[in-house]
Amino acid sequence: MVDPVLKEESETQNAAFEEVVYDPVTALEHSIREALEADSPQRIRELLISVHAADIADLLERFAPDDRLRVIDTIRLDFDPDVLAELDDAVREEVIEHIGVEETAAVVAEMDTDDAVQVIEELDEPEQQELLAEMSDSDRVLIEEALTYPEDSAGRMMQRELVAVPPYWTVGQTIDYMREHADQDESDLPETFYDIFVVDPGHRPIGTIQLSKLLRTKRPVMVAEIMAEDMERIPASMDQEDVAFMFRQRDLVSAPVIDDGERLVGAITIDDVVDVIHEEHEEDIMRLGGVREDDLYDAAIETTRSRFSWLFVNLITAVLASIVISFFEGTIDQIVALAVLMPIVASMGGNAGTQAMTVAVRALAMKELTPTNSLRLIGKEILVGWINGVLFAILIGFIAWYWFNNPLLGAVIAVAMVVNLVVAAAAGTTIPLLLERVGVDPAIASAVFLTTVTDVVGFAAFLGLAAIFLF
Amino acid sequence: MVDPVLKEESETQNAAFEEVVYDPVTALEHSIREALEADSPQRIRELLISVHAADIADLLERFAPDDRLRVIDTIRLDFDPDVLAELDDAVREEVIEHIGVEETAAVVAEMDTDDAVQVIEELDEPEQQELLAEMSDSDRVLIEEALTYPEDSAGRMMQRELVAVPPYWTVGQTIDYMREHADQDESDLPETFYDIFVVDPGHRPIGTIQLSKLLRTKRPVMVAEIMAEDMERIPASMDQEDVAFMFRQRDLVSAPVIDDGERLVGAITIDDVVDVIHEEHEEDIMRLGGVREDDLYDAAIETTRSRFSWLFVNLITAVLASIVISFFEGTIDQIVALAVLMPIVASMGGNAGTQAMTVAVRALAMKELTPTNSLRLIGKEILVGWINGVLFAILIGFIAWYWFNNPLLGAVIAVAMVVNLVVAAAAGTTIPLLLERVGVDPAIASAVFLTTVTDVVGFAAFLGLAAIFLF
Repeated sequence: MVDPVLKEESETQNAAFEEVVYDPVTALEHSIREALEADSPQRIRELLISVHAADIADLLERFAPDDRLRVIDTIRLDFDPDVLAELDDAVREEVIEHIGVEETAAVVAEMDTDDAVQVIEELDEPEQQELLAEMSDSDRVLIEEALTYPEDSAGRMMQRELVAVPPYWTVGQTIDYMREHADQDESDLPETFYDIFVVDPGHRPIGTIQLSKLLRTKRPVMVAEIMAEDMERIPASMDQEDVAFMFRQRDLVSAPVIDDGERLVGAITIDDVVDVIHEEHEEDIMRLGGVREDDLYDAAIETTRSRFSWLFVNLITAVLASIVISFFEGTIDQIVALAVLMPIVASMGGNAGTQAMTVAVRALAMKELTPTNSLRLIGKEILVGWINGVLFAILIGFIAWYWFNNPLLGAVIAVAMVVNLVVAAAAGTTIPLLLERVGVDPAIASAVFLTTVTDVVGFAAFLGLAAIFLF
Repeated sequence: MVDPVLKEESETQNAAFEEVVYDPVTALEHSIREALEADSPQRIRELLISVHAADIADLLERFAPDDRLRVIDTIRLDFDPDVLAELDDAVREEVIEHIGVEETAAVVAEMDTDDAVQVIEELDEPEQQELLAEMSDSDRVLIEEALTYPEDSAGRMMQRELVAVPPYWTVGQTIDYMREHADQDESDLPETFYDIFVVDPGHRPIGTIQLSKLLRTKRPVMVAEIMAEDMERIPASMDQEDVAFMFRQRDLVSAPVIDDGERLVGAITIDDVVDVIHEEHEEDIMRLGGVREDDLYDAAIETTRSRFSWLFVNLITAVLASIVISFFEGTIDQIVALAVLMPIVASMGGNAGTQAMTVAVRALAMKELTPTNSLRLIGKEILVGWINGVLFAILIGFIAWYWFNNPLLGAVIAVAMVVNLVVAAAAGTTIPLLLERVGVDPAIASAVFLTTVTDVVGFAAFLGLAAIFLF
């Protein structure tokens, strides 16, 4: 029943809007804290009884480790497997350590294969073995199989449960088949699915049918007649980033996964893809800032260690910049104004270069850069660097002139500014491209090389020009 | 037919894997370039005839503006509306300008309401009016209605086409209804859908049924018996970021949108949500780098202008740092080694602060920070800053000592390093929290304030301590 009055109704819509914020957890968090303070496990159980697993996971992440484990202890008797699946890796490790391998094995056994794999793959090798040993043979075999696929591959993302039918079945047969298998709790049918896969006698997928299509087709029609044949088949070894890209590009909701022999071995659904997109997003952002993905939930000492290496690289490049400055000790000794002004050129170059670099790194990640348009991008960036360089050269030139009452000093810093902004633009685009070419992830390494270039060129250009023209 | 031999088959899977890359466009791009050089529109048409709209859009984005418009001219006679919908905003604007308002209106009229709104909302007001004037009355009304909702709201994302049934219908009735409406091209049924919404007589949604559930239920069962009542209802004014958060949190594939009177006015599907997640992701990354989202496809002059403002702010903070240095001109004049070493402390502070800031900004965006755990985070960050500060103080202290053969200089830079890394940690966490409190987007503004603090404190601590202890 599509409502015909829909149109009139929605015309009353253009009233003032207040923004609606979706926040299912904050109020609950407050009540749980009260219950923790009152030391009332009964109350905590009551509060959490009808809360969605994803929200419970979020709640647990918000608490300090002590309180977190107290809440876990309260609900562990009927622990929802989905809560464990939804937790952040660092927090999940803590929880698993607390409840022990035996109890974890029982919880993991209740999960879908894709979720179980996701939990187990994050554990250390000995813990994995211990946990697998606690599981039933059939569960263990499925999980061990999934673990043979490379990390972050389609084989790890997929679920084994799917619906596949031969092409000569009718719509009616297909629906009846699903109805018959609906009641069996132990059926191989997935709980939720969005597409039916049509397979040939060799179990190779030859078509898909969206459920909304199946529902609108009359019973006697053969599935071969309504299946879409131009579907995407995902090789089990495909990287999860490529899977996510494909889903987005094709607006897919589920897709078949095939092995080397092109046989259907599983299905990937959009919810797992959304998690991957989100994960990759977190990773991108965190790496740009020089931190690990789990940073928020890691212990301080873990965080310190993982950040140290990035800062250490920065120390080396900063010392490199200092060495460049030391070449001009004599020059600085004569005009101390140079020491005052010299960070400006380096700082502007670093920021302008970062702008160009951000665009190049993103374009590479989005597969939008090819050899031909890379040259175009470099050309454009150098032009942008040159224009902005000239504008800021004029600004800083006048500032320096008036500040130190020395027009020649103004001219020197102005020229250095143009030089450094053009170099920054060129380096900001070419460094990511070169790193990609030699197989290093540009998102991680570009920033270090870039700031080294802009610092060295910034100090050298300014102090070098000063050494030549101011004496 | 769920294949029972699936398990045995997949055991042959653990052979060596080579990575499969999903790249449907690059080979095609090469062929089209050849066809462009050979000036063969016929060949271009042949090449593109069975290519997916999203891939055509990607292809067009890869070409230089001239070539792009030549390809457009070749295929404009049977222009697929989805190509226009999939294009990047900046490129789409170029294409619309090229093909003209009249032709654009014809293309937009063929789109689903959600896609049409997405295209039109990006145009300038006068262009919007021109385009709407060219459309049929019914199309125009729908689009104008959608445009009354705030930008980036659920009301703009939703499609009007959906399936809603009363609770007393049976599964059989529902399926028959959909079959009857399958053939009509002008039916109000959406082409693809994943859930059926159950509405009360006031057209308020009271439950949803996943199609896979409907398909597995016998015909005489009433929909009220199998509907899920604990569904999420999305207010039309909800921000798209919150919608995306909700879909991810609840693993949704589609959800009903309601107006102020709680009546069902539309449905949001996962493909639109994936686009939003992706868009927000691009925005986050680009803003961290100080560039606009469309930067890659903007003309050089546009890019220069948008980046200028960010660099201008940086110039001011750099000058501020220089003013701090100028207070110590006398000190530098006596020991030129200070000028050589001074960028190191500031640079280390900037990077350490950025690490802390990245974590805080992400946690705020992911709604993972609350008043209680914010304090915990600040405490942890200061501890991390202190530990890394001590470690790097020892390193740089010895370097400075040996370099300039001056143990006191080593001690001064070491103390300055600890001070600046602790300040950086505190500022990196508190600045985003304060900005969020006063309603400024922390992702945009945090970096500017942070580097100002770390530069000023870095230079002041090092030169100030030197002024006190080295003379």
